[in-house]
Amino acid sequence: AAVTVATIGALNYLFECNLTHNDIAKLGHKVEMKVQNNASLTDTYVSTHGGVIKMSNCKKLPLIECGVVIGNTNKLSSTKEIVNDVSMLRLEYPQLIDQIINIIGEIPNIGEKHLEKKNYGAIGELMNINHGLLDSLGVNVKELSNLVYATRSAGAYGSKTTGAGGGGCMFSLTSKDHVDNISKAIIANGGDSLITNTTNCGVNVESKYENC
Amino acid sequence: AAVTVATIGALNYLFECNLTHNDIAKLGHKVEMKVQNNASLTDTYVSTHGGVIKMSNCKKLPLIECGVVIGNTNKLSSTKEIVNDVSMLRLEYPQLIDQIINIIGEIPNIGEKHLEKKNYGAIGELMNINHGLLDSLGVNVKELSNLVYATRSAGAYGSKTTGAGGGGCMFSLTSKDHVDNISKAIIANGGDSLITNTTNCGVNVESKYENC
Repeated sequence: AAVTVATIGALNYLFECNLTHNDIAKLGHKVEMKVQNNASLTDTYVSTHGGVIKMSNCKKLPLIECGVVIGNTNKLSSTKEIVNDVSMLRLEYPQLIDQIINIIGEIPNIGEKHLEKKNYGAIGELMNINHGLLDSLGVNVKELSNLVYATRSAGAYGSKTTGAGGGGCMFSLTSKDHVDNISKAIIANGGDSLITNTTNCGVNVESKYENC
Repeated sequence: AAVTVATIGALNYLFECNLTHNDIAKLGHKVEMKVQNNASLTDTYVSTHGGVIKMSNCKKLPLIECGVVIGNTNKLSSTKEIVNDVSMLRLEYPQLIDQIINIIGEIPNIGEKHLEKKNYGAIGELMNINHGLLDSLGVNVKELSNLVYATRSAGAYGSKTTGAGGGGCMFSLTSKDHVDNISKAIIANGGDSLITNTTNCGVNVESKYENC
């Protein structure tokens, strides 16, 4: 999604199309739908606008002033297969899985209030609850779980699977003091680590050669 | 609970009290309440009666004709602390945690139907869903998670934390063909393994010296 949005943003700049950020987000989503047959608005929308966004109403929330550490399991997985597995589980046990998905959908409503109060401990707890619910849907794996538990032990506010699961990445929300410890815990548990930050800046042009 | 019930069963036999199994279960529960201040009927009731029991109505279900492999993390945890942590989480996020606990409570209703059809694959899937929900309540730990994922990969129908969590044991339900592989997976992941069976037999006297 980030590459799609960046490409559209670059073409927009190069050909002076004057697309707004909302236009770029919508186009990005269209591209993903065409390529994958299925895509959520989340990734393209957030890549375009930046910041913290509550997706149910596309509301921009206050920026989370924390460190973020991403852990990559380096285990490949197929989003399509994972999505299909969850669909099958939902068909088999609709009365359970629909309720679990509903609870996942309620978490941002509770998170929004804590975010406004900069109560990052609570945001971390909600991430942990969310991770368990994702586990119950069958998208967690040993490698992700190991990084999640190791980073929680290393002092993260919370840690969870990100993306489709089945491999790929997890991330931790943490005070800036703990980013190094958390990064070390990821590496000690077989993952690759990336220390990063939240940003309010979405797609933009920053080349100093822009007038060449 | 098993020791409590066995002790009461032994005293019942020795002093010819003619306690019924229901009497022994109730006495066992009373003892646990007195010692721990808090206890569910589950462990003492099942230890007394044996077999597969749906606890919401104390209904005896058909025996599960599978292998059972228990994995012990050898990590100690305090049931009291774990129960307290879940209570705190529930106070903080009642709208989430109550729903999660309700879903956990619905699983046996779905499991009962699959049990009657000997659909053990489904019972395993329900165990896995249950394990994720327990993870979302914060009672899972890395050591348990490792054994759970390793045993699923080794061919278990399903694997989940058992007991209070925070350490202690997990178990797998499996076809008899897979018990050895699952046991090896537990040992390879740092746990102790116990291969066992389900049984319809609860507390009973089996000493050959019973008339000494």
